[in-house]
Amino acid sequence: MGEIASRRILGLSKAMAKFATINRLNEKSATIGIVGLGYVGLPLLLRYCEVGYKVIGFDIDQSKVDSLLRGNSYIEHIPSQYIKDAVAKGFVPTTDFSRASEADALILCVPTPLDKHREPDLSFVLDTTDSLVSYLRPGQVVSLESTTYPGTTDEKLLPRIESHGLKAGHDIFLVYSPEREDPGNPVFNTRTIPKICGGYTKSCLEVGMALYGQVIDTVVPVSSTRAAELTKLLENIHRAVNIGLVNEMKIVADRMGIDIHEVIRAASTKPFGFEPYYPGPGLGGHCIPIDPFYLTWKAREYGVHTRFIELAGEINSSMPNYVISKVTHALNLQKKAINGSKILVMGIAYKKNVADMRESPAAMLMELLRERGALVSYSDPHVPVFPKMREHTFDLKSEPLTPATVSSYDLVLIATDHAKFDYSMILENASLIVDTRGVYLQSAPNVVKA
Amino acid sequence: MGEIASRRILGLSKAMAKFATINRLNEKSATIGIVGLGYVGLPLLLRYCEVGYKVIGFDIDQSKVDSLLRGNSYIEHIPSQYIKDAVAKGFVPTTDFSRASEADALILCVPTPLDKHREPDLSFVLDTTDSLVSYLRPGQVVSLESTTYPGTTDEKLLPRIESHGLKAGHDIFLVYSPEREDPGNPVFNTRTIPKICGGYTKSCLEVGMALYGQVIDTVVPVSSTRAAELTKLLENIHRAVNIGLVNEMKIVADRMGIDIHEVIRAASTKPFGFEPYYPGPGLGGHCIPIDPFYLTWKAREYGVHTRFIELAGEINSSMPNYVISKVTHALNLQKKAINGSKILVMGIAYKKNVADMRESPAAMLMELLRERGALVSYSDPHVPVFPKMREHTFDLKSEPLTPATVSSYDLVLIATDHAKFDYSMILENASLIVDTRGVYLQSAPNVVKA
Repeated sequence: MGEIASRRILGLSKAMAKFATINRLNEKSATIGIVGLGYVGLPLLLRYCEVGYKVIGFDIDQSKVDSLLRGNSYIEHIPSQYIKDAVAKGFVPTTDFSRASEADALILCVPTPLDKHREPDLSFVLDTTDSLVSYLRPGQVVSLESTTYPGTTDEKLLPRIESHGLKAGHDIFLVYSPEREDPGNPVFNTRTIPKICGGYTKSCLEVGMALYGQVIDTVVPVSSTRAAELTKLLENIHRAVNIGLVNEMKIVADRMGIDIHEVIRAASTKPFGFEPYYPGPGLGGHCIPIDPFYLTWKAREYGVHTRFIELAGEINSSMPNYVISKVTHALNLQKKAINGSKILVMGIAYKKNVADMRESPAAMLMELLRERGALVSYSDPHVPVFPKMREHTFDLKSEPLTPATVSSYDLVLIATDHAKFDYSMILENASLIVDTRGVYLQSAPNVVKA
Repeated sequence: MGEIASRRILGLSKAMAKFATINRLNEKSATIGIVGLGYVGLPLLLRYCEVGYKVIGFDIDQSKVDSLLRGNSYIEHIPSQYIKDAVAKGFVPTTDFSRASEADALILCVPTPLDKHREPDLSFVLDTTDSLVSYLRPGQVVSLESTTYPGTTDEKLLPRIESHGLKAGHDIFLVYSPEREDPGNPVFNTRTIPKICGGYTKSCLEVGMALYGQVIDTVVPVSSTRAAELTKLLENIHRAVNIGLVNEMKIVADRMGIDIHEVIRAASTKPFGFEPYYPGPGLGGHCIPIDPFYLTWKAREYGVHTRFIELAGEINSSMPNYVISKVTHALNLQKKAINGSKILVMGIAYKKNVADMRESPAAMLMELLRERGALVSYSDPHVPVFPKMREHTFDLKSEPLTPATVSSYDLVLIATDHAKFDYSMILENASLIVDTRGVYLQSAPNVVKA
């Protein structure tokens, strides 16, 4: 066979693999494999089920798989009924990665934390990929959703995907499409949050667009996996830096005797050019405190520095100590010390109206108070029992909030401002309040703003 | 007279002064004095005229007063017809500050620049106040609109206002209400941009609310002049820091071979938690490069640092040199040096679609290019002749843009992306383009992104 004819047939087979996959995705006859069944994977697979795809969910955690098989949700804002409906529709949760070969698409939704040296820990992504590699087959599309530094998909995933002879862009397709989940967001959900997608090749991008096109209202193509990777990082860097800025402004305003919350509210009346961010006791959650440092780490390879990220990290991570200094100051006004004081921490989830404790600064505050001799309790309607955490151990249950219990503490520290709290009851009954969230706009003799 | 009776009469006279002033303002029978007839004062006085107040405009610059008397505007986006209409309605521009006694309100709209050591230069505010002091009388309200550090109104204006025996909050009223003018904004104007107002006392605030209540749709009261002063600074600090951040991100992305403009556009599709800011060749205008340092300076008095502001200042002010390095790189690709090259700078106003040259980074770029031996020309449809500037002297007129002229340059540097430019014609005819504004989304052989 001449070279040209050979090329033409190869080209045809390549085009056929691509179009076959795109067709199966568009017709919803494709099987979708979601790998990692947490905050990102679970809502995504429910959306694929809802639309009518056959879905297999992979996780190494047998307890998660068992819970799903029983129709039980383990994420507060996802009702168990949704899981039951998905299972009834044929959703299969499994720890058996060999079933990856059944899937037309494999979407990786695994964590990308930082290690103890605050460097990227890609072990979940890479170990997962290694577990899948021997089950990959022609026609599949692999999508990474985990937040990571620019270059991860091309430099780390690509060689693994191709290690068994498959050629990305020809017989297997590789895309990066960052998750934008916002647990507890009352307005936007998986379907309505536009989704960025970048492909290793143009063919990869075409398949990626088809992969998400039936389940997400708006899929936004970008020119490369690197552009998609940096997009997600920029979003979270933007938040981390803006929160760092208002935290610094809070410290400056406090020294000048000005309430930063009043100033932010006033600035928010400007109808252009200003976007409010709010100070707090430190950064929480799985994204904002962590993701920016993925770029910091990668930038070093290019000899450039990410000074805003580093400054934001420094200021944001100093906020728990700032709060402790305010607690010390507040107790000192009443001739008390932290040591021996009964302190109630209100709100221990990392943000308002959710149960999520990941990287919660409240746990850090509890730790710092305990270290200094405080008798620490907490109250959080979303967290009835203090969960097992890697860095923090508290054998505590959420305290009920009544006038009697509230008045029994030397100090009440508002760490997270859940809507379920009765703030006027707290104000009436607490002997001392340290408010890190600007809950109390008016000055009051028993309130110290922090 | 007993002390209580005496107090009651004083209280009554105080209340009468306040209510009389508020009534005159509410009924629009008050005379409004605007001091400083520039970018802030001129639109504001036109608005007062429009609503029906008698307005006196004060300026030390006789040429401005003469121009207004002839019905001529000296600000591009303010049509002369508006001036003519105001003069016909009785608007009086004058350099005679003794007429300040005729005004019920005196609104100070003078510049607050930085001195050579980048410290606040309050001389315009203080000299103006000193010129007015001997003409102040009971019942007047004095409002400062100039951007400045928290404490200026209470620490600097108050003692001057009270120096001739008047008591602020009793027989004269003192407020701070920052200007939020945005020249060239097609959506919002003086009337529709909400206005912050803080008073030295509660009575001062009440009078201040009446002062602006008839001309501004929404007046937002805050608890103190300091809160109002910090509000304006926070707005501009927010912008300066966000622009600094994207400028840093541009440098990082450029090293990684990623187009930051594509990334910002992609991130902007996130419907919450992200607000796009765009990189550029440096900061311009009279606010963003200057105002933040007012807080930096004042914060030092309290022993606190404004590190985000300082980092943003450092990065933003380094951008012209970054652009020059890109120009060097671009010319080097064609084996040329800056020295001896013909370079056309497109857009020299400090921002898109305006004529304003204040603090324009384009002028700095032209200076840096000339220093390095370039034959510099410029083209800007909004700036027909290079204006007199304190720091820059160029005896140049705007060059017409035709295929022939464009192709005659070794390099075209897009500094400000006015809508009036024909970018496809430029792309077709320029031998080399350095694009600092992300005008060209697609790669092209003659375009270098900077």
